[in-house]
Amino acid sequence: MLIVMKQDASDKELNAVISRIEENGWQAKPIPGGERTAIGILRNKGPIDPALFIDMPGVRDVIPVSKPYKLVSREMKPDNTTIELSQGDNKVVIGGEQLILMAGPCAVESENQALEIAYAVKEAGAKIFRGGAFKPRSSPYSFQGLGEKGLEILAKVREETGLFIVTEATDHEVLELVEEVTDIIQLGTRNMQNYRLLRRAGQAKKPVLLKRGMWATMDEFLMAAEYIMSEGNNQVLLCERGIRTFTRHSRNTLDINAIPYMRRESHLPIVVDPSHAAGRRDQVIPLAKAAAATGVDALIVEVHNQPEKALSDGPQSLYPEQFKKLVDELRQMNISV
Amino acid sequence: MLIVMKQDASDKELNAVISRIEENGWQAKPIPGGERTAIGILRNKGPIDPALFIDMPGVRDVIPVSKPYKLVSREMKPDNTTIELSQGDNKVVIGGEQLILMAGPCAVESENQALEIAYAVKEAGAKIFRGGAFKPRSSPYSFQGLGEKGLEILAKVREETGLFIVTEATDHEVLELVEEVTDIIQLGTRNMQNYRLLRRAGQAKKPVLLKRGMWATMDEFLMAAEYIMSEGNNQVLLCERGIRTFTRHSRNTLDINAIPYMRRESHLPIVVDPSHAAGRRDQVIPLAKAAAATGVDALIVEVHNQPEKALSDGPQSLYPEQFKKLVDELRQMNISV
Amino acid sequence: MLIVMKQDASDKELNAVISRIEENGWQAKPIPGGERTAIGILRNKGPIDPALFIDMPGVRDVIPVSKPYKLVSREMKPDNTTIELSQGDNKVVIGGEQLILMAGPCAVESENQALEIAYAVKEAGAKIFRGGAFKPRSSPYSFQGLGEKGLEILAKVREETGLFIVTEATDHEVLELVEEVTDIIQLGTRNMQNYRLLRRAGQAKKPVLLKRGMWATMDEFLMAAEYIMSEGNNQVLLCERGIRTFTRHSRNTLDINAIPYMRRESHLPIVVDPSHAAGRRDQVIPLAKAAAATGVDALIVEVHNQPEKALSDGPQSLYPEQFKKLVDELRQMNISV
Amino acid sequence: MLIVMKQDASDKELNAVISRIEENGWQAKPIPGGERTAIGILRNKGPIDPALFIDMPGVRDVIPVSKPYKLVSREMKPDNTTIELSQGDNKVVIGGEQLILMAGPCAVESENQALEIAYAVKEAGAKIFRGGAFKPRSSPYSFQGLGEKGLEILAKVREETGLFIVTEATDHEVLELVEEVTDIIQLGTRNMQNYRLLRRAGQAKKPVLLKRGMWATMDEFLMAAEYIMSEGNNQVLLCERGIRTFTRHSRNTLDINAIPYMRRESHLPIVVDPSHAAGRRDQVIPLAKAAAATGVDALIVEVHNQPEKALSDGPQSLYPEQFKKLVDELRQMNISV
Repeated sequence: MLIVMKQDASDKELNAVISRIEENGWQAKPIPGGERTAIGILRNKGPIDPALFIDMPGVRDVIPVSKPYKLVSREMKPDNTTIELSQGDNKVVIGGEQLILMAGPCAVESENQALEIAYAVKEAGAKIFRGGAFKPRSSPYSFQGLGEKGLEILAKVREETGLFIVTEATDHEVLELVEEVTDIIQLGTRNMQNYRLLRRAGQAKKPVLLKRGMWATMDEFLMAAEYIMSEGNNQVLLCERGIRTFTRHSRNTLDINAIPYMRRESHLPIVVDPSHAAGRRDQVIPLAKAAAATGVDALIVEVHNQPEKALSDGPQSLYPEQFKKLVDELRQMNISV
Repeated sequence: MLIVMKQDASDKELNAVISRIEENGWQAKPIPGGERTAIGILRNKGPIDPALFIDMPGVRDVIPVSKPYKLVSREMKPDNTTIELSQGDNKVVIGGEQLILMAGPCAVESENQALEIAYAVKEAGAKIFRGGAFKPRSSPYSFQGLGEKGLEILAKVREETGLFIVTEATDHEVLELVEEVTDIIQLGTRNMQNYRLLRRAGQAKKPVLLKRGMWATMDEFLMAAEYIMSEGNNQVLLCERGIRTFTRHSRNTLDINAIPYMRRESHLPIVVDPSHAAGRRDQVIPLAKAAAATGVDALIVEVHNQPEKALSDGPQSLYPEQFKKLVDELRQMNISV
Repeated sequence: MLIVMKQDASDKELNAVISRIEENGWQAKPIPGGERTAIGILRNKGPIDPALFIDMPGVRDVIPVSKPYKLVSREMKPDNTTIELSQGDNKVVIGGEQLILMAGPCAVESENQALEIAYAVKEAGAKIFRGGAFKPRSSPYSFQGLGEKGLEILAKVREETGLFIVTEATDHEVLELVEEVTDIIQLGTRNMQNYRLLRRAGQAKKPVLLKRGMWATMDEFLMAAEYIMSEGNNQVLLCERGIRTFTRHSRNTLDINAIPYMRRESHLPIVVDPSHAAGRRDQVIPLAKAAAATGVDALIVEVHNQPEKALSDGPQSLYPEQFKKLVDELRQMNISV
Repeated sequence: MLIVMKQDASDKELNAVISRIEENGWQAKPIPGGERTAIGILRNKGPIDPALFIDMPGVRDVIPVSKPYKLVSREMKPDNTTIELSQGDNKVVIGGEQLILMAGPCAVESENQALEIAYAVKEAGAKIFRGGAFKPRSSPYSFQGLGEKGLEILAKVREETGLFIVTEATDHEVLELVEEVTDIIQLGTRNMQNYRLLRRAGQAKKPVLLKRGMWATMDEFLMAAEYIMSEGNNQVLLCERGIRTFTRHSRNTLDINAIPYMRRESHLPIVVDPSHAAGRRDQVIPLAKAAAATGVDALIVEVHNQPEKALSDGPQSLYPEQFKKLVDELRQMNISV
């Protein structure tokens, strides 16, 4: 934290700021400049709220300096984290050379539907099957997922196809159930700051795919990952899924700038969800290719065999043949899928 | 939903759209115009996803028409909802002629602190005491609230001062505890789409103060209120607390335009939280007065006796004497407090 | 500018940063802390681009410290600027005790229309008549204003009614014409960074009402005002007119937080345009009252006698009787109009 | 335009809406539904402002249906527009199979600087040289470009290297000068709604590269292109250069979703500027590759031989060897450069 004093700040005002810093147990370091004095704050643990000083007499501005997170930062751990899934001989590494594809329907609707899609995406090149059993829905009148029955179907998909599973836990109790079955626990965008759920995920023994809140700054997103890691779970995947902007031509805006930024700031693997970032099928393939071009570690894509009849998010789901086309186009870009 | 066809759309393309509408059990109503044909969709229950049609051949655009909510809408209930709290002779009506002030610290820190602030805000004109016992915090390393001990202190404040209580429930289990003690259950901005919590709040017997997500459109906010009402609880207060924008001179931007919009769209009472909308003390009073000038039903304001030592959100808390000044200025504006 | 080094930055990396600072003619001031070193930059004139250092080895973060503007800042001139208009005995002071009302149609359409509206708003309490002669329109197929004929009508309004005039200059050539006739030169939101126009306005002898770009941060807005002042014109009015956000229930979002911020940062008078901030008539009065409650110096409001037939922006124009109602309600708030 | 009536709207209210439509010379088409009636508006030329109806009794909502632009739309011209530059045998086609690279410094600083960079980017694969002679700068105290001297240097670069030239016209008078020298006239983001400049560009005989305003919706951007085309110039390039969002980890956010949307909506060629979208060098290459992966027609990239000493935008400029690396990586993606 840096406190910038006004040009005409008096010594008394300067000293009052220094006192407030010291009362909080921190150390004040005045930095006299040409026109004015600034005061650095040292020895603070965690971030300081700028507003603590902003209304003191003589203060012109207050500027945060430290990043609030530690465990997730590349500074703490310079080399990339990789996440390994294995089931017998079958092994997948996320964060290595290969772009890992996760694909499947928004919601698990029936065993037949899940298996049919699973075989299709597996053949196209997917390694991980996605599908929601517990669904957060913006309308109370919409289909809310099959619940435990959905988890059973996912277990069956895993067993029959050899695909690994990623599925969402919508609250800390649901996480208990999901954890039994899934290979990766997904936390949704609306739950990015559901702290009880984050803590519980931090106690799980499975990797956690954390979706960025559609409103979240990078600091906030990385702090949510910090919550999980602070409980002991180092297996976190950072998933960019589109942010809310003023635009109206897509449901969200894929924050493609965030990808190099996360790579710089953090050692954790990066996943992109082009389906939610688009919200409409005709933008999914371009977004997926754009993300792949930046070198992300995995994509999570909605695929449905009958999207026009899907019980949830059909309109942004690719047809299986479109997913296959996407994989072909990624390979034409010389990306190892 | 209105589907706008391209000028050169063929009859075959038109019929394919009509078929898809009818397959979903809805009714298609073509509207031939001068340049092109549009197709209205009737008999749908709940909103339809535009993307269901956007990639069909011959389709130019798809435009949502219906609002997704019902119970919260003024169309359903034209007269304003009022919420009455009472305790013996003591009675408060939110949604009537009087602007109701809710005030108190971000977090309950001790009995002494809570009582001292409570007496101060009561004397200034507040009718309801706010204070968090369970706190959602963006850092895992920050103070997380006193929990059940905090609820006991709130009960004491209620008993000693006669102020009513509003406090936050951070998840569906915490809600069980909070519900016993509080007069109004607060749901926080980060939980606006925590559907399990919304449903549980809908089963509670106490009024619910629902904070708007900092990213939420009005449709999304009103749908969250609809979740609560759909479970049978009609006592919902809509709380605007600032949205996330590109600006950097305040933590959030108070969406003052939302106030007349909510008044038009919904019968539910409207509350504004100028403290979180500002994020810094020097903007709280102007925002509070602005909100009052638009005719909101209540304000919820953070007040702390020693904000520079507060364990949470001190920098946006008013000093008790500033709160008193705010009340005086509201009275000068001829607002009945 | 403050450069924050990584914890494990080497001396060589530190020295490279210092060298780059010194090569630019600035002074480097290392600030060793507990965990890491930061380096302050002194003796720079004007702001430095953070990206100049962000990709140097060992650099963790780069943080701007100085504000880029000088002349507009309250630090430079602590007391409020007032702007006085006079015509014979008739005098108006903007920035004094009284809230000054500017009102009139979006565009001047005819002498009769202008005079009828002018007399109506004058009677209600307006001191300044607004009306566009040169109109920037988002469609090339829309009415573009009466041009010089419109200026003649404005001169007539001024002469007949005694109201002062504010009208927009859409480019530096138009400004020559506008300057002859008007009392205040308006620069529109789309021209906030039209630097040639800003410079030309800085050479004018009339006050300039500068509208904030709908996308502009406070730094950018104040820098635009700095452009005008840097050419010698100290008579600048800062006009907030709504910013672009993700919301959809209004054309723009009035940035009410910006009002106390501008008051703190700058000595220049503050105007609010509730008409453009709303974009729809039913939100104009609440926004106008909200702005007035925060203590702005003037409001600029669109009023039209036949808004449903207006050639431009009719739907956000108040009827004359609504404008009168607004003035009455402002007076009920004990605001001196 | 579709007007949605309230469920309990009376016949009188319905008829008043119909009358207002007809008074404007349009045609009203009532569409009775199950719950309520909607009214379509036909025979309107150009878009209608929703606010014209929003405050009429009985009206629930007003929904725009038509797009405001015509000439730029793919509906009007289904096949892609290509833009051909030629100089003797030397020919470049934008909008064909090849990804065209435009590269060079933000500002032309000297003949030596310009030529050195030009030769470097040509060797790497660029076909068009970018460089500003007239610079819009956010501070009045910054370098404003070499002006006409800069244009002479650009002419020399063209002659010596055989590269085509793109440079910015900052106002309608500057455009006269720029038009003489350049192959493509660039209009900057801050001028996207400078209508006099747009009209003047529409009268030019050279192609126009129009940068999207950082705040502009697709409708607004395409309407700006419509302004140019409405004056007879069909050679318009649509350039996405990043939008303003709430994020803080980059200067702007590249709106990658806009690329497939523009491709769908318009026949005009699409250019992406990754340099301004990033604002910092370390994000430029990932953004450029992402844009290329979506199939844009051209990239415009800032390259400087001594970015740390550049007079403008150095920190987002690539070093020549980084530009070469970018081209290599694009070729590895099997993109024809």
